Amino acid sequence: MSGYNVAIVGATGAVGARMIKMVEQTSLPVNSVKLLASSRSAGKQLQFNGQALTVEETVPESFEGIDLALFSAGGSVSKKFAPEAVKRGAVVVDNTSAFRMDPKIPLVVPEVNPEALKLHHGIVANPNCSTIQMVVALEPVRKAFGLKRVIVSTYQAVGGAGNRALKELHDETEAYLKGEEMEAHILPVAGDKKHYPIAFNALPQIDVFEEDGYTHEEWKMIHETKKIMCGGDMDSKDIKVTATCVRIPVPVSHSESVYFEVEDPKATVKGIQDALAAAPGVVLQDDPDNQIYPQAHNAEGSKDTFVGRVRPDQETPQAFHMWNVSDNLLKGAAWNSVQIAETMDKMGLLHVQ
Amino acid sequence: MSGYNVAIVGATGAVGARMIKMVEQTSLPVNSVKLLASSRSAGKQLQFNGQALTVEETVPESFEGIDLALFSAGGSVSKKFAPEAVKRGAVVVDNTSAFRMDPKIPLVVPEVNPEALKLHHGIVANPNCSTIQMVVALEPVRKAFGLKRVIVSTYQAVGGAGNRALKELHDETEAYLKGEEMEAHILPVAGDKKHYPIAFNALPQIDVFEEDGYTHEEWKMIHETKKIMCGGDMDSKDIKVTATCVRIPVPVSHSESVYFEVEDPKATVKGIQDALAAAPGVVLQDDPDNQIYPQAHNAEGSKDTFVGRVRPDQETPQAFHMWNVSDNLLKGAAWNSVQIAETMDKMGLLHVQ
Repeated sequence: MSGYNVAIVGATGAVGARMIKMVEQTSLPVNSVKLLASSRSAGKQLQFNGQALTVEETVPESFEGIDLALFSAGGSVSKKFAPEAVKRGAVVVDNTSAFRMDPKIPLVVPEVNPEALKLHHGIVANPNCSTIQMVVALEPVRKAFGLKRVIVSTYQAVGGAGNRALKELHDETEAYLKGEEMEAHILPVAGDKKHYPIAFNALPQIDVFEEDGYTHEEWKMIHETKKIMCGGDMDSKDIKVTATCVRIPVPVSHSESVYFEVEDPKATVKGIQDALAAAPGVVLQDDPDNQIYPQAHNAEGSKDTFVGRVRPDQETPQAFHMWNVSDNLLKGAAWNSVQIAETMDKMGLLHVQ
Repeated sequence: MSGYNVAIVGATGAVGARMIKMVEQTSLPVNSVKLLASSRSAGKQLQFNGQALTVEETVPESFEGIDLALFSAGGSVSKKFAPEAVKRGAVVVDNTSAFRMDPKIPLVVPEVNPEALKLHHGIVANPNCSTIQMVVALEPVRKAFGLKRVIVSTYQAVGGAGNRALKELHDETEAYLKGEEMEAHILPVAGDKKHYPIAFNALPQIDVFEEDGYTHEEWKMIHETKKIMCGGDMDSKDIKVTATCVRIPVPVSHSESVYFEVEDPKATVKGIQDALAAAPGVVLQDDPDNQIYPQAHNAEGSKDTFVGRVRPDQETPQAFHMWNVSDNLLKGAAWNSVQIAETMDKMGLLHVQ
């Protein structure tokens, strides 16, 4: 077997940089790597396995001979070019929201619903970062005890909004320390009307607002969780999900405070911890006596989802709380995308043309 | 009427500095102000209304002739000296956890349970910062629609852990920007075994852990809320309350993501917003179309509690979400203490000796 020809679309972005790393580390046989971006970034040189690669402008012909295309360059780029890649025989793993809610396109977290990959028609959608780490932490609970209900409040990192947002956090922080005015041009949402400082602040807006008062990020957590955990049904009533999504001044790694109710009245903290400790992709960090719990600062650079602070609700039966943390640019984006490809390879769903 | 002789115990701390400001601004007639602290801080000079006052060491005799003593110097100082102040005829408003759970001592937020002040025997307890702003935001809801249940996740400021913690956030932030190692000596809890950086991090530990896996801060939010909102009963089952308390790298102003269930099936978002807009101490900032919602960055320096992002839970009847923000050192501490004294004055419960 000669190995896959891989294209990374959006290679110069915050997620793109991690996609390059994840492809360097992948167990997949890789024959060649092509780095694609907008015309603005074309000509830049980036390292892949110690070798300089020149970033090329994305055009339909970029995908000739490509077996696997990893997209993370915004929804409009995916909508335009993912079908072009598929037409040329590539499998697309798309890390934008372009196709996530399409009922014919699998939305996959390999630890949770790998079987959905069998239904793909060329495109597989990678879920939203905050959704992925939550379902990785909840799936072992669902398997062991059933899952009825989830209420999550997030503590999301700035890196989720890209490199420009990271620079804004840095610049605002420097200005604040010097006693200067903080200038906001990107967050909470680059395309929205108003911008607010994130440094030394907490912003209860991620993505734009829907008409019902929820943000689109919250909408994504609710409906993507249902699609992933409830057999593809984004409006399933089997698991009730609601979310409050908040940006905090952390560069990388999202944290989540998750309240959940289970079906099994015999569920215990110990039983949940055991299920988590045995689960793929999960690292249990739960020892309050020794102040061991997941922290954003420690999760950066890891592919795992860290879970701790598992405890019972004291007044509601079958209800518990947990705190989960994961690198939003790895498990939340680049790693989950490459892991989807590795899983498809193992399942015989990815082929050298 | 000649005015009150006021003592501020813990005058050199983060809350003490705000207590001085609040006494400068109070509507109470003030005859004299005495600044007290530990022997370490005695001799320091602090400004009160443009006049330099010398900080004195706290001893029992400090309270001779004092009518009102505001304490914020740690629980052990309050336990030692509050009874001495009361013995000498002062009313004590104590901003530590020393007396909060004593069933004979009122725990008061003036917007919520001023009537409890009538039961005082010299000491009134000021609740925990994160509790105060939540009950200010929930009381109008309770009055209008009844309140059955609360699930809160907090985004708490570093200033709540005092001036040393604020300096630690500053120093860690500078180190991080220079690419140096961050050194943690104070947070999450000065007296606990391990310390972790707060800069660019989120710490799911505030105060020490209880045996049940909850932190003491979470315990306080649960039981203080019940005591304030349920007629003094800290174990009331009338309102179910649970909490996850998290420190984030914000200097001042706590934010809270609050899920709540009401009794009245006719409750609406509009009805809740109207109740909040009309409530004392609350400023409604809730206009998603114009990206208006409360932010820590804007709340600093205000006595109010800002509430926004009021929206219905989409799958659970009579359930809603809100986001509230307040200056934890003012409404959460110094202002609530002085406001208690102003309320007692109006109720005829505070007297010049």
